[in-house]
Amino acid sequence: MTKEDLFDQIQQKQSYLCVGLDTDIHKIPKHLLQTEDPLFEFNKQIIDATHQYAVAYKPNIAFYEAHGVKGWQSLEKTIAYIPDDIFIVADAKRGDIGNTSKMYARAFFENMNCDAITVAPYMGEDSVTPFLDFDDKWVILLALTSNAGGKDFQNLELAQGGDLFEEVLRKSAEWAGNDQLMYVVGATRAESLQRIRKIVPDHFLLVPGVGAQGGSLEEVSRYGMNSQCGLLVNSSRGIIYASDGEDFGAVAGQKSKELQQEMSKFLNSFL
Amino acid sequence: MTKEDLFDQIQQKQSYLCVGLDTDIHKIPKHLLQTEDPLFEFNKQIIDATHQYAVAYKPNIAFYEAHGVKGWQSLEKTIAYIPDDIFIVADAKRGDIGNTSKMYARAFFENMNCDAITVAPYMGEDSVTPFLDFDDKWVILLALTSNAGGKDFQNLELAQGGDLFEEVLRKSAEWAGNDQLMYVVGATRAESLQRIRKIVPDHFLLVPGVGAQGGSLEEVSRYGMNSQCGLLVNSSRGIIYASDGEDFGAVAGQKSKELQQEMSKFLNSFL
Repeated sequence: MTKEDLFDQIQQKQSYLCVGLDTDIHKIPKHLLQTEDPLFEFNKQIIDATHQYAVAYKPNIAFYEAHGVKGWQSLEKTIAYIPDDIFIVADAKRGDIGNTSKMYARAFFENMNCDAITVAPYMGEDSVTPFLDFDDKWVILLALTSNAGGKDFQNLELAQGGDLFEEVLRKSAEWAGNDQLMYVVGATRAESLQRIRKIVPDHFLLVPGVGAQGGSLEEVSRYGMNSQCGLLVNSSRGIIYASDGEDFGAVAGQKSKELQQEMSKFLNSFL
Repeated sequence: MTKEDLFDQIQQKQSYLCVGLDTDIHKIPKHLLQTEDPLFEFNKQIIDATHQYAVAYKPNIAFYEAHGVKGWQSLEKTIAYIPDDIFIVADAKRGDIGNTSKMYARAFFENMNCDAITVAPYMGEDSVTPFLDFDDKWVILLALTSNAGGKDFQNLELAQGGDLFEEVLRKSAEWAGNDQLMYVVGATRAESLQRIRKIVPDHFLLVPGVGAQGGSLEEVSRYGMNSQCGLLVNSSRGIIYASDGEDFGAVAGQKSKELQQEMSKFLNSFL
């Protein structure tokens, strides 16, 4: 998907919501456990209920890999089920030497037709560039993550000045344009977002950590939005586990609609 | 597998060889392509021919994921086929927020019964610790990688002094002992190995980059070995693709035997 297509969809739906499919067999409603493929059955109903409010889905690959072959089947079916005009992020946090990254790229871009994959930056340029060889596919590079351990290394101050995550932004922005590269930015505070936007004003940012992880959607939107929106805001647990009854689909739909309506307001205020 | 078991095996086999199973459908001998599961068939013959010389196997997960469900099946069969007393490293370079890392740990430690998994450090402590909750299972954390891009971030000098990779070693060594934690160290130069051994004298190091990637086994052994060996030296292409004919198994056996014999010499000299 091109940047233009993504922005078109954001404008049409008045939403920059990404729904995280962190589908956990221990958390989905019990009545689904009797179906042949509970993970897929859950995702299918979530997608049916939320697709009109979401511009992206983000399956968290770990939750499928944990079930081996069977989980991988659920994942493939889920990705095939997502409507074609919706952006699909394989949240895989991959990254390895060149020939290996190329294999991961094939797995997620060719075999599964995802639009984007999250990549860890630690191994540097030649671990990232193999993912950039695919037309209209995206790398979403980890820059600043919202977990407690994020600051262990990402916020280390460098001798040359600035923190490590800023150098990750700066250096990686030389490897690809903002039509192929986005960043995972767990920042929800104004100060961090402003620092990030100084370095990468035009890139899309994938922002987890709104909702269950406590970030403020307004703050993210006010300080993170650029002229083409430039934001995909993810919510997982707050939507998909909002109910654990038979009404989980309807409730997920309602929760995503509420987020979409807030987003519509912020698009009108800040775009 | 415990550290003692691993060291016992090293002494018995007089080897610290890890054979990398980077099994590429485009590189394996053509006659295998008619078999039902070419990746597994290849691995099976490689394992048969090399297991007496190797103390570890390292399947590179990307090469299996690239084939989706089918590749995942080949991977599971391969791991089940490896003899029980041999150390199995899932070279997966995973790492994510806590609940997600836990899922990856389940995938590789519970479902597939690997002994170790390679993990990327960028997301810090709580992305690594979920892998440490499993008895006698190991995290092999990326510290210094041998690819060209490795220096993009790993060799950045910190304001507090030292390079990023040294801080990764220092900080992570607080999270677990050397009975649960190893490091990926692509260093083959004396100077880097000496710097690393100053920080983590007792940990095992998994060293790729000997052979096809050009490192010297003697240099690695001289400067990297500690009193319990402390080294797993990986070779992939130099063994598994040494022949692309029907004799590929025999040739792989011969290549791994040559490495084992060199290693035996270094164990006698440096241990």
